[in-house]
Amino acid sequence: MLENINDPAQIRDLNTAQLQELCAELREYIIACCAENPGHIGASLGAVEIAVAIHKVFDTPNDKVVWDVGHQAYAHKILTGRREAFKQNRKYHGISGFPRRDESPYDAFGTGHSSTSISAALGMAVAAQAQGRHEHVIAVIGDGAMTGGLAFEGLNNAGSLNADLLVILNDNQISIDKNIGALHNYLLKVTTAERYNRLKKSVWDRMGAGRPRAWLQKQVKNLKRSLNRTSTEALSLFDSLGFRYFGPVDGNDIGTMTYMLGRLKDIPGPKLLHVVTVKGKGYAPAEEDQTVWHAPGTFDVETGRRTGRKPAAAKFQEVFGTTLLDLARTDERIVGITPAMATGCSMNILQKEMPERVFDVGIAEQHAVTFSAGLAAEGMLPFCNIYSSFSQRAYDNVIHDVALQNLKVILCLDRGGLVGEDGATHHGAFDLAAFRPVPNLTLCAPYDEAELRNLMYSATQDGYGPTVIRYPRGCGRGATWHDTPFSYIEPGTAVKRHEGSGIALISIGAAGVMGAEAVARASSQDGIEVLHYDMRFLKPLDMAAMEDACTRAKCIITLEDGSCTGGLYSAAAEFIAARGLGCTLVGLGIPDRFIEQGTPAQLYAECGFDANSVYRTILAQKI
Amino acid sequence: MLENINDPAQIRDLNTAQLQELCAELREYIIACCAENPGHIGASLGAVEIAVAIHKVFDTPNDKVVWDVGHQAYAHKILTGRREAFKQNRKYHGISGFPRRDESPYDAFGTGHSSTSISAALGMAVAAQAQGRHEHVIAVIGDGAMTGGLAFEGLNNAGSLNADLLVILNDNQISIDKNIGALHNYLLKVTTAERYNRLKKSVWDRMGAGRPRAWLQKQVKNLKRSLNRTSTEALSLFDSLGFRYFGPVDGNDIGTMTYMLGRLKDIPGPKLLHVVTVKGKGYAPAEEDQTVWHAPGTFDVETGRRTGRKPAAAKFQEVFGTTLLDLARTDERIVGITPAMATGCSMNILQKEMPERVFDVGIAEQHAVTFSAGLAAEGMLPFCNIYSSFSQRAYDNVIHDVALQNLKVILCLDRGGLVGEDGATHHGAFDLAAFRPVPNLTLCAPYDEAELRNLMYSATQDGYGPTVIRYPRGCGRGATWHDTPFSYIEPGTAVKRHEGSGIALISIGAAGVMGAEAVARASSQDGIEVLHYDMRFLKPLDMAAMEDACTRAKCIITLEDGSCTGGLYSAAAEFIAARGLGCTLVGLGIPDRFIEQGTPAQLYAECGFDANSVYRTILAQKI
Repeated sequence: MLENINDPAQIRDLNTAQLQELCAELREYIIACCAENPGHIGASLGAVEIAVAIHKVFDTPNDKVVWDVGHQAYAHKILTGRREAFKQNRKYHGISGFPRRDESPYDAFGTGHSSTSISAALGMAVAAQAQGRHEHVIAVIGDGAMTGGLAFEGLNNAGSLNADLLVILNDNQISIDKNIGALHNYLLKVTTAERYNRLKKSVWDRMGAGRPRAWLQKQVKNLKRSLNRTSTEALSLFDSLGFRYFGPVDGNDIGTMTYMLGRLKDIPGPKLLHVVTVKGKGYAPAEEDQTVWHAPGTFDVETGRRTGRKPAAAKFQEVFGTTLLDLARTDERIVGITPAMATGCSMNILQKEMPERVFDVGIAEQHAVTFSAGLAAEGMLPFCNIYSSFSQRAYDNVIHDVALQNLKVILCLDRGGLVGEDGATHHGAFDLAAFRPVPNLTLCAPYDEAELRNLMYSATQDGYGPTVIRYPRGCGRGATWHDTPFSYIEPGTAVKRHEGSGIALISIGAAGVMGAEAVARASSQDGIEVLHYDMRFLKPLDMAAMEDACTRAKCIITLEDGSCTGGLYSAAAEFIAARGLGCTLVGLGIPDRFIEQGTPAQLYAECGFDANSVYRTILAQKI
Repeated sequence: MLENINDPAQIRDLNTAQLQELCAELREYIIACCAENPGHIGASLGAVEIAVAIHKVFDTPNDKVVWDVGHQAYAHKILTGRREAFKQNRKYHGISGFPRRDESPYDAFGTGHSSTSISAALGMAVAAQAQGRHEHVIAVIGDGAMTGGLAFEGLNNAGSLNADLLVILNDNQISIDKNIGALHNYLLKVTTAERYNRLKKSVWDRMGAGRPRAWLQKQVKNLKRSLNRTSTEALSLFDSLGFRYFGPVDGNDIGTMTYMLGRLKDIPGPKLLHVVTVKGKGYAPAEEDQTVWHAPGTFDVETGRRTGRKPAAAKFQEVFGTTLLDLARTDERIVGITPAMATGCSMNILQKEMPERVFDVGIAEQHAVTFSAGLAAEGMLPFCNIYSSFSQRAYDNVIHDVALQNLKVILCLDRGGLVGEDGATHHGAFDLAAFRPVPNLTLCAPYDEAELRNLMYSATQDGYGPTVIRYPRGCGRGATWHDTPFSYIEPGTAVKRHEGSGIALISIGAAGVMGAEAVARASSQDGIEVLHYDMRFLKPLDMAAMEDACTRAKCIITLEDGSCTGGLYSAAAEFIAARGLGCTLVGLGIPDRFIEQGTPAQLYAECGFDANSVYRTILAQKI
């Protein structure tokens, strides 16, 4: 059935049995594709019926659907003309793993980061209203994404406007790790309140039927207690915010879903349908270990065995997690804070050993940073780990709560630079540029595993205030890191990686490894000896190293896995121009445009800062 | 009584009558001081009893209190050893208008921006717990600040941890303008639910007292309906989030407040006390017009007449508001979005004429931007106005929802640059630097009133995508702006303001007016003709103007009311270094440290970019 569907209009005539079959085929297709071409399989398997029911009931693309985060939208993509393209999901020049406006008219709003859907959908609903168009707008948001403050801001605004907005709360109780927080507890209570609902019905039915007064009084008491404890809460959290609440219903039952959406379709105003789904639904291994199967890499469909190769070198994430545990063992002030990424950033290593030292605050980057500032204000030493691109959410908190008060929070920005297959929304391109102007911050990026470990250690020592340590996704160059003692790195000190003159390469972070490869090649193949400094610190900048480079070289090449504008390139330019040195500066890094998905190697090459590009840049200099 | 209190410990022995007297004296003192030295009088008058009750009941500074936003903390400041210093409130080298950790041990956490208090207080409570200290931590947050997503993130986390945290929700139904949104509606319902509470009690009392069954049934039905509509909501919004809810109580009744805080003091876990106060309490003019009296400037205590001088020139805010109305009249796609600053940014001018075209979304900068993106996605033309320093909250939304999707949102950043008396938390120092690396954005800052008006007009035209227009607080130079027709400004075009060579001044924004004054003086007094370009656009940069300046001048001076690091200074440095030009670059602007409060003139001078400083810098160049 699936192979003939090229347009969601085709599914509007299908009956429930046919829709069930379609859902099964979609699952099979998603599993088969993701087995060979890795993707976010778990969330998308859970949301198959949601996607099918929406396209069955609503008149897409005239009606608009916004998929929060968006990695659960594979069924939506496959149904909306991208069945074949889905084989190139997340690949270089393939389709994005997230909805994108420029990819399909069915992708009403691009997503990637969490908790944007209600705000965006409300804007669209208000626009339709203003233009006199009758349009349904639907936001599909997970219970994890619902903890993001932005989602609350959207609810608060939507609940007081009279726009036609349907929020489908896709409650699978898990983001990547198990969801936590008060909202999670609340939703759990709501979904287990069936017993109460039966009780309430029975009491009411029998009120007039000749029961003794004492019994009646007891039942009312029970009713009251139940009301206070369970289902009034279902009524009230969202009702309090001006939404009509419906549910919970089984979001993996296509009959229920089409029935409910059909019923809600013409109810005006803001409404929320709470659906309960199972992440990984329909594929046993994915249902069993939902965290691993969030994005499992390649696997064998039959056995569920994951077939991805184990990398030779340690990932920076493992270095972070292990080092944090090692440091926490020696300093009881140290705690870890993560906004729902304990596994992704490997803070689960500390969490496993010392659960009381780790605070998973849910998807809430702003809170993660201000909470860390509160901890630091009272003498703790918080390591707050946030993915670089998500730290854009916490920009004000870093400025206003951490830097301005000079509170010693150690902010570890994971996935700095180009992240690969997650693409434009997830690249950590702006962190170095955005944080460089902020006073009081120390801003550094390790060259390799050992430097990450030593920077983490050093940041805990005197001489460091609030510190940002930024490192990439994935493996380092394979440096020895675990069995050597900690070594203190003075803030603002560079390392000379290669001796030379005429041309100087100034790098920061792990991109420097590609630079070193190019420098070695220029030396061995062309006899060009390039002076190479690994700056380590963007702030404070090592002025002696800069002075040395600009004295001995007429041409300076900067290299960074981040936006040149505002980053190391700008810092070097300022150094040169302030002194009127007349060196020529060439900036290698992320250019001034959004970069799409691909393997990191493909993207480094595209941006012109892989080892080959650096080598060619060296050769191209007139010296 | 007040004049003898130098330590809050002194008030712990006072009885209710004495506390009432103290509150009256505090009000009188705040009114007298603010009449001469402007401040945030309204919020602080409303929170007098909260401050007194906290210091009466709790063992400050061992117990910690975090004042959200912080401008309501005047009574707290006066009671904690800063009675005399309060006369220099918000003045240059005086005390800050907000709590600051480095100002007093009683200021447990610095604030200024909204909605941080719950997160910070939770961090402090968790730290105390980890360190085995028995400490009470109190967050005082207004109902306006409660709509910020960060506050919700804090509640969600706190409600699932077992830390001892008391949140005092100071509900005065107003931020600066009347609060709006679903949370506001909810709180209003809760506070008017007294009638229901009486009903419930009476029903329950009579359940066993021989009434006929029909009557009983009706009463239970009433009870159920009431529960659904009103007070279950009081129970449930905050209870749902894991807080024990208490209230609402009269927050301007010192007896009630000390009684309630005393009762709550030793109840463990997260709890929320909902207190209702009157903004401006105790001063009739301030109670009557709460928006104006948020920060009224100087006034005559007796008559309530505001004595501040009417400025000669128009404020940029008036230009923005009037122009937005003029544009909206000609283009029905145009709408205005403000996060609770309709009066502050003068969007109330449009709001008054066309209320349906303005969306005040509450204190919710993230949502304001993503909501605008949703509007733009469906063909509207949103002008989203956010104070520059608050736009740091929306950094990710500008990148991820606006720029990445190339959606035409016109983001007007009010209060860009040094704002004056509000000090470090409120200066708009980082906007130019932070937004410059973001692809697809056009980034501009007007020189004067006419340029603001024409940039706003131009941004609505073809040739502009997503656009940031950034301008300062207060008056322009007095340029004619209203009676001239709109004039289109090509993106990336500079204006030559003075002909010269040898030295070039490259300015952006209204700081250029100080530059022009210096250039004129150098010309008339010293015969030095400085080439002066008003760049207008930081992005795209006018390359021809830069080329011209760098060709004709060996010394380039950049001038901007923003962080040099990352801003125009960096852009000019990149231009020079990339070409190996060997010009010497001098950057005038906000240096790499946080700047405190003072008049703008004092702060420009301190930072070295007032007209005098620019003039001296010109003279100091060797050419």
